[in-house]
Amino acid sequence: MELWYTEYQTKNLGLAARIKETLYSGKSKFQEVAVVEAYEFGRMLVLDGVFQTSIFDEFIYHEMIAHVPLFVHPDPKTVLVIGGGDGGTIREVVKHQSVEVAEMVEIDGLVVEVSKKYLPEISSALNENHPKLQLKIGDGIKHMQEVENKYDVIIVDCSDPIGPGKGLFTHEFYQNVHKALKLDGLFVQQTESPFYHQQLIQQLTADITSMFPITRLYLANIPLYPGGLHCFTIGSKKYDPLSIDIGRIPENLNTRYYNRELQKSCFALPNFVKKLVR
Amino acid sequence: MELWYTEYQTKNLGLAARIKETLYSGKSKFQEVAVVEAYEFGRMLVLDGVFQTSIFDEFIYHEMIAHVPLFVHPDPKTVLVIGGGDGGTIREVVKHQSVEVAEMVEIDGLVVEVSKKYLPEISSALNENHPKLQLKIGDGIKHMQEVENKYDVIIVDCSDPIGPGKGLFTHEFYQNVHKALKLDGLFVQQTESPFYHQQLIQQLTADITSMFPITRLYLANIPLYPGGLHCFTIGSKKYDPLSIDIGRIPENLNTRYYNRELQKSCFALPNFVKKLVR
Repeated sequence: MELWYTEYQTKNLGLAARIKETLYSGKSKFQEVAVVEAYEFGRMLVLDGVFQTSIFDEFIYHEMIAHVPLFVHPDPKTVLVIGGGDGGTIREVVKHQSVEVAEMVEIDGLVVEVSKKYLPEISSALNENHPKLQLKIGDGIKHMQEVENKYDVIIVDCSDPIGPGKGLFTHEFYQNVHKALKLDGLFVQQTESPFYHQQLIQQLTADITSMFPITRLYLANIPLYPGGLHCFTIGSKKYDPLSIDIGRIPENLNTRYYNRELQKSCFALPNFVKKLVR
Repeated sequence: MELWYTEYQTKNLGLAARIKETLYSGKSKFQEVAVVEAYEFGRMLVLDGVFQTSIFDEFIYHEMIAHVPLFVHPDPKTVLVIGGGDGGTIREVVKHQSVEVAEMVEIDGLVVEVSKKYLPEISSALNENHPKLQLKIGDGIKHMQEVENKYDVIIVDCSDPIGPGKGLFTHEFYQNVHKALKLDGLFVQQTESPFYHQQLIQQLTADITSMFPITRLYLANIPLYPGGLHCFTIGSKKYDPLSIDIGRIPENLNTRYYNRELQKSCFALPNFVKKLVR
């Protein structure tokens, strides 16, 4: 018998995946957590019914959310990941030689536990307790209220702006991120789909632009997400992604998507996306 | 009652669209032809159950398959579109001032007829009988066998390599395209998904590379197609897409996706795609 699961990307559009097996299904204080194995995507983490990451294409999201900002900053030593409980982003962060401390603040301990057990390829840095890693289960919003002038780079690896992720798209949150960054720090956040979240992108771009001298949006191609095209927004106090010398980026990075040509080209926006950030 | 249609992108993955209305359903000698109105994608052309083009995102495919090659060539006068019966590609082609003759050879007259009636935004150049347009209903494969040294640019705007489109991905076809082009001509073809058609892309890249001194693959983001990321391959006798001076491309082109930054950046390939064309 063929079993299928359809994720409703909008109320009129779904991505239907044939499922081999449900490996885990449970509930935390914050959300429903599941791991399924799909025939096409492989093992997938699903939160509140929404596909978060899959073995098939996770390399794209994790490489692009980590390496692009970490190579904009000339010497990132202290990095924070907010969210990212599956461990994929921190796995990429710790690869950077300059990084000495890779902090993670994830609100849902169940996501970390389940990823360590069922998605070891993604959570490898968590499982091996990487020496650079400082993992804290707690509220990233609260953490941003409490720290000041601490981080070179902050990566906001959050889920959608509903449920636990909602407060990570507010003016107040961005102000606290600004405060938590050092004088020349920068942050990046996944900022959803340029097809299906246009108002959100316009709003957060305006917010971030009001606080940071440099605001840039870049793109990556992620089959698992609505529309297959995904935005990331950088707010930077000093370094401009468009002005960096890509000659200082190593060539053989052992990455499956990211390379130094993409470091620049991912900021070249189609006209309909340019309109959103004008 | 909510009615849904699921297009099976692979046998284990589907794109499910909620449908408002079926506007046309029929059959030609070659394929089943339908036009439906989906809530998310708007009016869509569907051939043999596969989504071909939609009002929502057609601008992306049509701008990228037409403008990228037409701006690689310094002075394209005589252009041929093989396929493209919906009219979207030729609509973009005739916008180029240098173009004097825009020929179209589409095998299925029903596709042209249905697009003119139900997708007028896409088929506008067909409906207005644009003065540059020379439309012929016939077999593009046969046409390539019969002509020599005629075209500056050939655009192969075909459907998938099953059904009528199958013969447009063969070594023999590429040889005939080479013959049909002028001494400094170039062609482009839509070459499917870098996620789901990897063997095909490797094979056709090898074929085209064996005949043309310059072979380049570029990418565009098309939500309607599997994986949301789509390939286009250029075979060129003289002009290299990577070497053109984008300064000669106008800035205000009235396009919704294409712009001159993309003319270069669309050739920057993620590592997993680079591997396919090595």
